[in-house]
Amino acid sequence: MNKSIKVLAPASVANLVCGFDVLGMSLADPADEMIMSLTDTPGIKIIHEDEYNLPEEAEKNVAGAALLAMMKELDPQTGFFLRVKKTIKPGSGLGSSAASAAGAVAGANALLGNKFSQDDLVRFAMSGEKLASGVKHADNIAPCLMGGITLIRSIMPLDIVKVSFPELYVTVVHPQIEVKTSDAREILRKQVLLKDAIKQWGNIAGLVAGFMQKDYSLIGRSLEDVIIEPVRSILIPGFNEVKEKCKNAGALGGGISGSGPSVFMLSVEEKTANRVSEVMREVYSCLGIDFKIYVTKIDEKGVKIEVFQHQ
Amino acid sequence: MNKSIKVLAPASVANLVCGFDVLGMSLADPADEMIMSLTDTPGIKIIHEDEYNLPEEAEKNVAGAALLAMMKELDPQTGFFLRVKKTIKPGSGLGSSAASAAGAVAGANALLGNKFSQDDLVRFAMSGEKLASGVKHADNIAPCLMGGITLIRSIMPLDIVKVSFPELYVTVVHPQIEVKTSDAREILRKQVLLKDAIKQWGNIAGLVAGFMQKDYSLIGRSLEDVIIEPVRSILIPGFNEVKEKCKNAGALGGGISGSGPSVFMLSVEEKTANRVSEVMREVYSCLGIDFKIYVTKIDEKGVKIEVFQHQ
Repeated sequence: MNKSIKVLAPASVANLVCGFDVLGMSLADPADEMIMSLTDTPGIKIIHEDEYNLPEEAEKNVAGAALLAMMKELDPQTGFFLRVKKTIKPGSGLGSSAASAAGAVAGANALLGNKFSQDDLVRFAMSGEKLASGVKHADNIAPCLMGGITLIRSIMPLDIVKVSFPELYVTVVHPQIEVKTSDAREILRKQVLLKDAIKQWGNIAGLVAGFMQKDYSLIGRSLEDVIIEPVRSILIPGFNEVKEKCKNAGALGGGISGSGPSVFMLSVEEKTANRVSEVMREVYSCLGIDFKIYVTKIDEKGVKIEVFQHQ
Repeated sequence: MNKSIKVLAPASVANLVCGFDVLGMSLADPADEMIMSLTDTPGIKIIHEDEYNLPEEAEKNVAGAALLAMMKELDPQTGFFLRVKKTIKPGSGLGSSAASAAGAVAGANALLGNKFSQDDLVRFAMSGEKLASGVKHADNIAPCLMGGITLIRSIMPLDIVKVSFPELYVTVVHPQIEVKTSDAREILRKQVLLKDAIKQWGNIAGLVAGFMQKDYSLIGRSLEDVIIEPVRSILIPGFNEVKEKCKNAGALGGGISGSGPSVFMLSVEEKTANRVSEVMREVYSCLGIDFKIYVTKIDEKGVKIEVFQHQ
């Protein structure tokens, strides 16, 4: 009889418009599910019970890569078994790979009696993210693990700050086209104008102050990105239209979720968030692009773990 | 008998290391003093009662330029008389021109029965700043007018955010060399690396969160500037040495005040701030450079106005 656990790893929105590579927010919905247990056989065995045809070899699997990073600091006899049912579609811009990586290491850590610190888990999970995007970053991993809104002040050394926030509703549309994080990164310019960078740090400072002061208007005014969005939005059909119409419908603001193609909008009230979802539906129906919409809230807890016994 | 007022306009520290052009902090000491009154003769008459040989013609004087901007929206018969005793040395990097401009317009507004809004005053004062630095910016003007720590999220449209902060001591050394704001601006590169900009917005977000959460350690970790300081510090003899030694003496951190040459350091306790002042004294004494040191606190009020009657 081995202890099994059920892991729920939430989707997340990285960047939050003006906080490229440093801000992230955890979502109450959707979330990936994993059933995990320790095994007597050393190594990592992964089975996917979803529709995404992801590789199951540990080295090629995001959850596996994250666990392999953890294994380097464990007894080589340790073995993990994972049944993964992903709901967050890979390439959606909703932190799908972060959920795989963070869920796996948080689950493993629970099975091992919480041997590792939160920072260790972020470190391991970043190895999984590297497999997916080619870059070690934590702006999805941190909110997925810790919940809420997180700031990665620095990656090296790792410095994660939790940012308090008021009640907010999040509407997300995922147009069913694929944008690879690695492609979305390659089209960015390596240099930016100082005057644009100044606007951006005014906005990120305003956004953090707005969240902490619970100042909805300031949050809305600060949701502006003069550097990344003008480049990346080209990859997302209907972006400018959907953004403008959602704001007209009462959303505080929003933009590309992570590297896209999902687009998120923040609203103060649920009814506004629902109205925003109608606008998104209209725009993508007219464009003839399949889409999926979530109306949700900010998740406050991060990865959730349930323990149960099974044969 | 004309109503006269005494105006005290505080020094300020712009940029706060990682918030180039957007953050600023008002200081309890030093402050400029102006005696102002309305006159029957239209126009602006300025007399300087200090040692700085500043031009007294309104168009060439920073306080005058700010008042001229205000005059465009006033009855052309309005006249102001100013006796100015500056304590904040021009070119010190302590917001000397902002104090002249903000003090003059705040004083004039008090004489006119508070006809204008705070945003109007910032706008007028920026015209004074433009005369001094060639650029319209508000990162000294806003804290000088409003006190405390301010964020200029945007100049156009003007969006100023007050940022709350914990008790902090400020030690400032002003090495008596002149760095012109316009020169300090010209040596900056027009483009910056995206990866450096990302570090910078991680730090400014961390600094704002640190101030608001009253997290001294986070404030210290966030006081890092990878873009402006490496270029501008070359103009300040002893900069790296004084910064390192002040941090070793217990300062949370600090850097160039505005465009320099003044250097400021933040400390949690007064005795640390005093120890930091000793370190500054030693460094500049050894370098054979005259200096002035202030051990002070963050000013919470901004421009102060006393009303009195005189002949």
